[in-house]
Amino acid sequence: MEFSTHMPEALDQARSAAARGEVPVGAVLVGADGRVLARAGNRTREDSDPTAHAEILAIRAACAALGSERLPGAQLWVTLEPCPMCAAAISAARIAVLYYGADDPRMGGVRHGARVFDHPQCHHRPEIIDGISAEESRNLLQDFFRARRGAGTLARDG
Amino acid sequence: MEFSTHMPEALDQARSAAARGEVPVGAVLVGADGRVLARAGNRTREDSDPTAHAEILAIRAACAALGSERLPGAQLWVTLEPCPMCAAAISAARIAVLYYGADDPRMGGVRHGARVFDHPQCHHRPEIIDGISAEESRNLLQDFFRARRGAGTLARDG
Repeated sequence: MEFSTHMPEALDQARSAAARGEVPVGAVLVGADGRVLARAGNRTREDSDPTAHAEILAIRAACAALGSERLPGAQLWVTLEPCPMCAAAISAARIAVLYYGADDPRMGGVRHGARVFDHPQCHHRPEIIDGISAEESRNLLQDFFRARRGAGTLARDG
Repeated sequence: MEFSTHMPEALDQARSAAARGEVPVGAVLVGADGRVLARAGNRTREDSDPTAHAEILAIRAACAALGSERLPGAQLWVTLEPCPMCAAAISAARIAVLYYGADDPRMGGVRHGARVFDHPQCHHRPEIIDGISAEESRNLLQDFFRARRGAGTLARDG
């Protein structure tokens, strides 16, 4: 299978998020035709919005641009295993392929915990390809939380 | 325990959603001081946004109004068992109490399927009180889907 990797762009979004003081997770949404529909990094603090994860922002932007609540054939590239909220949104948007970087045993909802796609209540399961640039993604997160602890602030979720 | 029920307002939001052609689910968010912070009904079609469930819209509006990504002490009243996306958003927003109406064995993520609050990856679990005005909530949904099938359109998620 041939494909262009969009993980470097997703990692750029994660780095930009870190520079804004946000948890460094980035996402890129690619349409069925291979065109980039949206790029986003976390903005929960800046937007005062607990739902403003990179994946949700990318999905909302792409759907708004296309005037559709579904994105059949789309690929989502994200630097970290999605949480249950984002996994369920990926399903609702009918995204075809989920590419992600690092596993998230602490907050993830794809391979861990709620395993959102693995229940009959999930009506659309994307193809899942994980472990892409995982070390780079994990290093970004570790550096971010290490720096915040060093600065005396609380880590995400205390 | 004394409390004011906000389910009638949530049901009003669900009825308004149905009138707009949206799946009739409604939500009301009440702050720790008992003040209503936000009211919302589903708007996925109108907004071309698969994340625009009543609960997400209410959480986003309340957080924006308060300039905070967390709503400690808040109560969320919603007419239907939240899906995994909404359950995880409720957790992220640190909502204290979730009151809901009808169970949703087909799409729910609280008592069914992903059971988002029942994993160690869930870092905040609200108190949950369910079955409030459940029959009225269920009837709204059944009437909505029956009318749509009658009109020759597809039911939610086909």
